[in-house]
Amino acid sequence: MKISARNVLKGKVKKVIHGAVNSEVTLELPGGLEVVSIITKTSAENLGLAEGKEVYAVIKASNVMIATD
Amino acid sequence: MKISARNVLKGKVKKVIHGAVNSEVTLELPGGLEVVSIITKTSAENLGLAEGKEVYAVIKASNVMIATD
Amino acid sequence: MKISARNVLKGKVKKVIHGAVNSEVTLELPGGLEVVSIITKTSAENLGLAEGKEVYAVIKASNVMIATD
Amino acid sequence: MKISARNVLKGKVKKVIHGAVNSEVTLELPGGLEVVSIITKTSAENLGLAEGKEVYAVIKASNVMIATD
Amino acid sequence: MKISARNVLKGKVKKVIHGAVNSEVTLELPGGLEVVSIITKTSAENLGLAEGKEVYAVIKASNVMIATD
Amino acid sequence: MKISARNVLKGKVKKVIHGAVNSEVTLELPGGLEVVSIITKTSAENLGLAEGKEVYAVIKASNVMIATD
Repeated sequence: MKISARNVLKGKVKKVIHGAVNSEVTLELPGGLEVVSIITKTSAENLGLAEGKEVYAVIKASNVMIATD
Repeated sequence: MKISARNVLKGKVKKVIHGAVNSEVTLELPGGLEVVSIITKTSAENLGLAEGKEVYAVIKASNVMIATD
Repeated sequence: MKISARNVLKGKVKKVIHGAVNSEVTLELPGGLEVVSIITKTSAENLGLAEGKEVYAVIKASNVMIATD
Repeated sequence: MKISARNVLKGKVKKVIHGAVNSEVTLELPGGLEVVSIITKTSAENLGLAEGKEVYAVIKASNVMIATD
Repeated sequence: MKISARNVLKGKVKKVIHGAVNSEVTLELPGGLEVVSIITKTSAENLGLAEGKEVYAVIKASNVMIATD
Repeated sequence: MKISARNVLKGKVKKVIHGAVNSEVTLELPGGLEVVSIITKTSAENLGLAEGKEVYAVIKASNVMIATD
């Protein structure tokens, strides 16, 4: 599958915290960057997310803001 | 300012393309990763975005999806 | 690729309108439903979107609201 | 009320799962398509969402991505 | 129509700028607050948005971030 | 920090409800308007959100819809 989202960043699952409906997934990107994602618990389970699994963070460009100091 | 968005990634502006209402901004993160952002042209101008400027990509965790191969 | 987004709906491209930065893509789903999407022009071009092409609309569950009459 | 969101799809509530803060609502559209939504539990209660209720899925076009095989 | 979005704020259209695909709409809320919205040009036209028109800004709670000084 | 998000509205925390992963935060803006936000519980804790605290609601323009009666 090829997706229109402009940002597809390869990483590894570092941590998963499950709530009743949503899960918080922390990814580690190469270079030590971390990215945090909130997805449904059902998706986290369907994708078999667990520490160490290789995954991609996928982010639509219109959801990226820019800040300056 | 400290923001609730969990993802604040330091980078540099690599390219800016202006439309009538929106602008597409490409950032380069350390390690060569690129992140693309769509913001309003007014914001791009207000922040003085131009090639080489140091900025942050700011992404709310609920806007990050996860994919597997 | 398998994605955490809960909504992946098969359809066909019905119309594409390009702006300078973004494109508006209208899909037709089975049963005659239409779905409208805004993606970057670069993505529309990268995916080769044109009338009749088979594609999927992908929507994160947290971006779906519910309304009643 | 008439809303700017380009996608307003009629369906029926199929399932509701409540968390502490958010609820996951599964809708069934005509033709058997399913759409999953995450809204606040307060909204799910305010709208009286329960199995069989006729509702609309409302999705802003900028939140619809497109994927190809 | 009653919608799950938790934030529905009454205001008046102050300014509309049209691009090829999207429009930028500035609203004025009571008390002088301003809210800026990006919607498709088609929606801006369908809703007949013009200076002075009474409208509502509608914002899903999961799209509201919080910042501190 | 200066951010591209066009909507930065000053207010006070009125109520915080914590779930396992997400928190619902109600703000009161000047003039009595209320804004509801869903952020991660970790962010709510990191920002020290509690009743009476002065904060800002930050909303990207592309996440603001418009409705008419």
